[in-house]
Amino acid sequence: MLTKQTTGQAWKQIKGSITDVKGFTTAGAHCGLKRKRLDIGAIFCDVPANAAGVFTLNQIQAAPLKVTKESLAHSNGKLQAVLVNSGNANACTGASGLVDAYEMRALAAAKFAVPEEMVAVTSTGVIGEKMPMEKVRSGIEDLVLSKESTPFAEAILTTDTGTKEVCVEVVIDQKTVRIAGVAKGSGMIHPNMATMLGFITTDANIETAALKRALAKATDETFNRITVDGDTSTNDMVLVLASGLADNQPLDETHPDWANFYGALSACAESLAKKIAKDGEGATKLIEVQVAGAVSDEEAGKVAKAIVGSDLVKTAAYGKDGNWGRIICAIGYSGCTLDPDTIDIAIGPYETLVQSEPVVVDDAAISKYMEAETIVIKADLHQGQGVGKAWGCDLTYDYVRINAGYRT
Amino acid sequence: MLTKQTTGQAWKQIKGSITDVKGFTTAGAHCGLKRKRLDIGAIFCDVPANAAGVFTLNQIQAAPLKVTKESLAHSNGKLQAVLVNSGNANACTGASGLVDAYEMRALAAAKFAVPEEMVAVTSTGVIGEKMPMEKVRSGIEDLVLSKESTPFAEAILTTDTGTKEVCVEVVIDQKTVRIAGVAKGSGMIHPNMATMLGFITTDANIETAALKRALAKATDETFNRITVDGDTSTNDMVLVLASGLADNQPLDETHPDWANFYGALSACAESLAKKIAKDGEGATKLIEVQVAGAVSDEEAGKVAKAIVGSDLVKTAAYGKDGNWGRIICAIGYSGCTLDPDTIDIAIGPYETLVQSEPVVVDDAAISKYMEAETIVIKADLHQGQGVGKAWGCDLTYDYVRINAGYRT
Repeated sequence: MLTKQTTGQAWKQIKGSITDVKGFTTAGAHCGLKRKRLDIGAIFCDVPANAAGVFTLNQIQAAPLKVTKESLAHSNGKLQAVLVNSGNANACTGASGLVDAYEMRALAAAKFAVPEEMVAVTSTGVIGEKMPMEKVRSGIEDLVLSKESTPFAEAILTTDTGTKEVCVEVVIDQKTVRIAGVAKGSGMIHPNMATMLGFITTDANIETAALKRALAKATDETFNRITVDGDTSTNDMVLVLASGLADNQPLDETHPDWANFYGALSACAESLAKKIAKDGEGATKLIEVQVAGAVSDEEAGKVAKAIVGSDLVKTAAYGKDGNWGRIICAIGYSGCTLDPDTIDIAIGPYETLVQSEPVVVDDAAISKYMEAETIVIKADLHQGQGVGKAWGCDLTYDYVRINAGYRT
Repeated sequence: MLTKQTTGQAWKQIKGSITDVKGFTTAGAHCGLKRKRLDIGAIFCDVPANAAGVFTLNQIQAAPLKVTKESLAHSNGKLQAVLVNSGNANACTGASGLVDAYEMRALAAAKFAVPEEMVAVTSTGVIGEKMPMEKVRSGIEDLVLSKESTPFAEAILTTDTGTKEVCVEVVIDQKTVRIAGVAKGSGMIHPNMATMLGFITTDANIETAALKRALAKATDETFNRITVDGDTSTNDMVLVLASGLADNQPLDETHPDWANFYGALSACAESLAKKIAKDGEGATKLIEVQVAGAVSDEEAGKVAKAIVGSDLVKTAAYGKDGNWGRIICAIGYSGCTLDPDTIDIAIGPYETLVQSEPVVVDDAAISKYMEAETIVIKADLHQGQGVGKAWGCDLTYDYVRINAGYRT
């Protein structure tokens, strides 16, 4: 499933990850922030990369976000290294948390022999606990860069059940350009990227300003359209680094291949977003909501998110119950323009409501359909041309189990 | 715990329910909308009562809400009978649902020998299924009015685990005035009264316009401050009926005892709201959030609701985990005016964050405190004088169980 911009699809997905992009290597190690699994990692670019980031809209922002924003500001949008740790968010850690984040940046800069303002720092994990800096220091020391991406992809995980990687290829100026991404996130996922980290690398030659606009738009249509539990975290961040080594003519919106580049970037982001939604804490399935007929794409997205964010829709999905009443209820409180008498709803291939009149449905068939790993819910408001999608997951016993005992 | 307006407390809570108020009788019966339990009921007033209602803000509104609003409009704010059924919400039932709601009103009017516009109709239960009118017709026939309130209180329940009733007494013009309430609601509870029904009776002599203003204000500070799962239903309604038989001088804001009357009404509403929150689907405890130091009472209420509505705070409450990081995270995305560096948080008597610096806490002691039936979370933003409360419940395995299998 692709966002609108990717129709025509000039790009193709290939096997690979962020290190299969010219210029990039990564590292991952264990330093004791988590009991056993890898918990510290880095991305390195052979050359200063044009870079852009999007950050949580939560007013409480973790220390590493402040440091990373400062790096991007001081370097005029260039990064050469990204340091990541999991197991501790370094959020709500007061003044000493900021000192720790700066030290992490300085240590990574020294380790990789780049200026401090070329280093981004990102953290994910428990909020409100002081970063155990002795472990972090030895962890940074242990990092060894290579073309293997798995240790890094593992080192950024928290309650995720698996790594999330994607790689796509697109032709720009007859040059093969790659865009690849790796992400983590499985709880506290909601508008604006709660406890989600995403790292995208590309070898495209693209100016920072254009890269920033493309990332903002792609994020709006993908990462910001997923929800696991309605919480927006203090640590979310998506960074994109462009090495420029593909040697195409500099990309911006006036370049003839811009749509292809944007389509590939957006597809990469959408793939990661869906992997995150599907791996929602305790989830057994992905829910994709497709809304049409809204007065704008923005409103369609808002309706789609209201549906996919409803705890009642999510538990119904878990229970394989085609309870469309909960779907229309969510549409009703989404706050969007609608006519209560012109709504269509379908669950997979089954229409359940047409022009707001219930259709006699085969509950057993719908229930059978809902056993699938991906459930598609469609709604048409018949108010305009706006379309939009959102992704989420079912709400299960395991969500409660994971979150009732996260710290213990 | 009382809302601000009730300080001074001229009223007292007494044992009793809505039939202990002069002029009111009720009935409850079983007609087969639910398998075994009572599922149809009525409130009757010996005289035309001054009445006011507040209704869900969901744009999808069930048929009975339309009919009840029409009654109140046509009768100039007077009601003499309220018909209620549980087991079927008569929501999203298309044109025939409206026909059914009108028929229910007509049947109740005939049964109680009052004009149709003096009758309110309310329904709660599954959305999207046609009302089985044969059952309803025989149910209305079976209603027998009496001074016993329990059959009515039972007949309005859905997944509630028990009835919710309260009665308070207040002196107005040296006359004893009673205000009593009964409510239902345990899932789909969120801003603006999702799947919640509340019925308040009083023998106060009060004009409809003043009654309407008092109900709107009290609802804002109580019923609209509870959340179970973030969903806002199609059927919520709170009705208040005033028989005037207490024989006080007509009440409005200029009456010297107005504050006492409002305090009593608000206390009655708060008591019902807390009973609903505590009986949230699958809940094991009540969470009360008290916010101070916001720039306005409205913003304080919004912050309190964000905290009590966070799935992560709710699961932490279930797990007895004093994870204040989730609390500050919710404060951060509440959208209210704040300074990230001046926030205090306490869980019960335990301060966990002071001026945004973590306090060394005794996790075991906090966990012990969180075993209580009611957990109080306090936050001070230090931005102004605004205060506000909100109530909710923990998120448990049973919430998932109940909602994954509600229809089956």
